[in-house]
Parts: sequence; C-alpha cells; structure tokens
Amino acid sequence: MTGFVSFVSSGPGDPDLLTVKAMARIQNAEAILFDDLSAGGILEHASSDADLVAVGKRAGQKSSRQDHINRLLIDYATRGARVVRLKSGDAGLFGRLEEELIALKHANINYEIIPGVPSAMAATAAIGIPLTRRLNARRIQFITGHDIDGKLPTDLNLAALVDPNAITAIFMGKKTFPKLAKLLCDNGMSKNTPALLAENVSRQNEQLIYSNLGSMPRLIETKTGTGPALIILGPLLEPT
Amino acid sequence: MTGFVSFVSSGPGDPDLLTVKAMARIQNAEAILFDDLSAGGILEHASSDADLVAVGKRAGQKSSRQDHINRLLIDYATRGARVVRLKSGDAGLFGRLEEELIALKHANINYEIIPGVPSAMAATAAIGIPLTRRLNARRIQFITGHDIDGKLPTDLNLAALVDPNAITAIFMGKKTFPKLAKLLCDNGMSKNTPALLAENVSRQNEQLIYSNLGSMPRLIETKTGTGPALIILGPLLEPT
Repeated sequence: MTGFVSFVSSGPGDPDLLTVKAMARIQNAEAILFDDLSAGGILEHASSDADLVAVGKRAGQKSSRQDHINRLLIDYATRGARVVRLKSGDAGLFGRLEEELIALKHANINYEIIPGVPSAMAATAAIGIPLTRRLNARRIQFITGHDIDGKLPTDLNLAALVDPNAITAIFMGKKTFPKLAKLLCDNGMSKNTPALLAENVSRQNEQLIYSNLGSMPRLIETKTGTGPALIILGPLLEPT
Repeated sequence: MTGFVSFVSSGPGDPDLLTVKAMARIQNAEAILFDDLSAGGILEHASSDADLVAVGKRAGQKSSRQDHINRLLIDYATRGARVVRLKSGDAGLFGRLEEELIALKHANINYEIIPGVPSAMAATAAIGIPLTRRLNARRIQFITGHDIDGKLPTDLNLAALVDPNAITAIFMGKKTFPKLAKLLCDNGMSKNTPALLAENVSRQNEQLIYSNLGSMPRLIETKTGTGPALIILGPLLEPT
C-alpha cells in the first residue's frame, strides 16, 4: 500500500491561477506540504480532512530542513496517502524539486509533476505587457539572485545578462540587487534599461512598479516589504 | 457599448493545464479567436452560442494575417462582445501579443492578459524532471528557432547559448535546428550535452525523447511530425 506524490505548481499566489489539474489534486489530497510562499487562499480549496503541513523555507534563510521535507513526503506516501507537495510558481523552476524527486525515487514512491504559471509570466501579464518582443527581445532568461548561502551567485554569465536584446527575470533577488545592478552597469548595461519590480504578484497586496535599472536599488529599499519579489530587466514594452 | 478582450494563455494543449481563470473566460466568451496550436479539447469548453474563429498561423508560414486578426478583435469588441483571444503556451511568450495590444489601445478597447503554463515547463514536468538545477543550471533561457522569415535568427547570442551552466529551451526550432546545432558545436558546446525533444506536449500524441545535442538533428528528422515541438538543451537531470 504505497501512496503517490503530486508536485503541484501553485502559480504566483492567486488560486484562480492554479491549473484545473492542480486544483483537482489539491481538492483530493489527503496531505499537503506547503511553503510559506504558496499558502494563502490556495489552501482553502483543500479538503477539511486533509493534513496541511507548513514546511516553509523563505528566501535568504538557510534551509537545513530539506531532509525533514523529504522524510515527511516519504512517510505520508508510505502510509498510502495521496500527497500534494505544493511549490510556488512553477514547481520545476528554482524550487529544489530535484532533491525531493531523488528522495522519492530512492524510496520507490511514484510521483508526477504538474507544471504551473511562473511568476515572471504573471508579473508582465498583470501590468499588461508581453514578456518577449518579436523584434528586440527574442531571448528571455531567468536567474536567481542568491545562491545557497543567500549571496549573489559568483558564476553569473555577465555577457548573457547585459545583452541589450534579452529580457532577464531575477527571482529572489531583492537583497542582492544593488550588487547585481552595479555589476551589470560596470559591464555595459545602461542605467536607463527598463525594469519592472513586482512584489506579491497576483495577490491582494500586489505591487508593480515600472521604472529603470538605475532607480531599482532605491525602489527596492523604499517600496518593498517582505513578500516574494521579482525584478525584470530589458527592452520591455512600456505599460500604458 | 464597448466589449472587452481577454488574452488567454491556453497552456501546452491539455485543457486540464488551463488555469481556473482561463477556463472561466473561455466558458463565458461570446467570441473566441484561436490559433491552430491552441485548439482541440480546449474549445469544447466554450459556450455553444460562442463564435469560434480560427485565425491560425503555423510556425514557418508568413503571417500576413496579423492585420486581419487585429481587425476581428476590434470588430467583436466594438460590438460589445466578451472576446477571448486564445494563445498557445503563455500568451506573452513569443506570441506577437504586442501587435494585438497596440491595436486595441489605438481603438480604446480594454483588455487583460491571463498568464499560463509555458510548454517548456510542461515538457520537463511530463518527463518527470525539473527545468532548473540548483547546483549547475541556475540560468534558463528561452529563444525562438526562427525569425519573421522562418529562418534561424542572425542575432543569436552564442556566448549565452553555449554556456554549460545554462538550460536553453528552443521554441519553434525544429526546421532550423541542424543549423543551430552546428553553430553551437562550432562555438564549443559538447555534442554530449543532454537534450530533450518534446512534441505535442500534454496532448494524446505527446512524444518526449531524451537524448543529446549530437543526436538531435537526426531525431528531429526521423521521429517528429508536424506538431508543435520544443528542444531543451543543457545539464538536465536524467529522467528515470
């Protein structure tokens, strides 16, 4: 009697941005393991009988808890439960899914991955612009603003990042952004490069600020709170 | 009496990968304009009274029809209709959304953009692996394999593309892939780089082949049909 684990992408936060499949898995789950980032209204769709287990790791904190999460997934599945592991945005994007998949494989537990809406797509949609542009932004790239120690990664490909014909979305990059902005400018990126700061995308406290690279460090310092944030840089269409 | 246009991301094709919000818009639409790529089972959720208008442009064909699509959107909205413009994958990603938004702005018609599941996320989820990896694939990038004339774009940032620590997803790149593969290898990318070929992602005729860069041109030639395909390259986790 072995259960099954569904890695479910929660999207940016608004339950209406769950996929139909994700919603069905949440409604039918017997146990849901969720991070801080993916909680809120989404869990209201869970069965009243389901175990809801917070296993939150917030950006910037050391996550010594990965072993604990792996063990919980295996314990619930071994007891035969339908388990949902809820992950914010798209589950396969910067989410440490790999460690959890490998733990399940070693324990011979079957799983599925349900893809979802990445917050970069939700942020540009919310401000009414496309993420790419046919003529001058045909490459988009996603990076994280911090490594496992919460610092700016040291292996950034700066030539790729300062390309004036690319759009770059920086996930979990609020804290390290002043340092990154300086590196980008020192490597030739214009301070006038359009930039979108998006915090709490699709939630009631959503904040979208369209500005430019040079202004972004101060905007982050003065305008943002503790919610998940995303910075998007490049030749974005100007919202109206 | 002016209508409203919802640009709705259809996701990769499976109606269960629509978001809850997208599904609601489709069910309530009075007119749906759709491309070939986003049709199929999704349209079965439309009201039986809705106008379903195919405005298909397939990859590789010249699309002189953009003006026609813009005009249809404006005509329906001006008559007061709730219009859905369905776009495959995520609507803001490589979809010529910009031209349609600008046409609506000029006509003073309000719109919204509903983000969706990009096929790159759906392809890796379907084969059971994450798109990124914490230790060696912290940058992901998306490009298109063809420009407006159906040819390989000439402004590719090869330094960005051959980076061994990045994952690259190539959209609409089947036809031009042999040329791109040669360019990548000539610029230092290993033929052993893992590669995923994904055709008709999330549909009944889905085909997922995990191989490597060197084998990909022949696999495309011998294994793929006419469906939408995606190629993902880089240090991907090996599926089991």
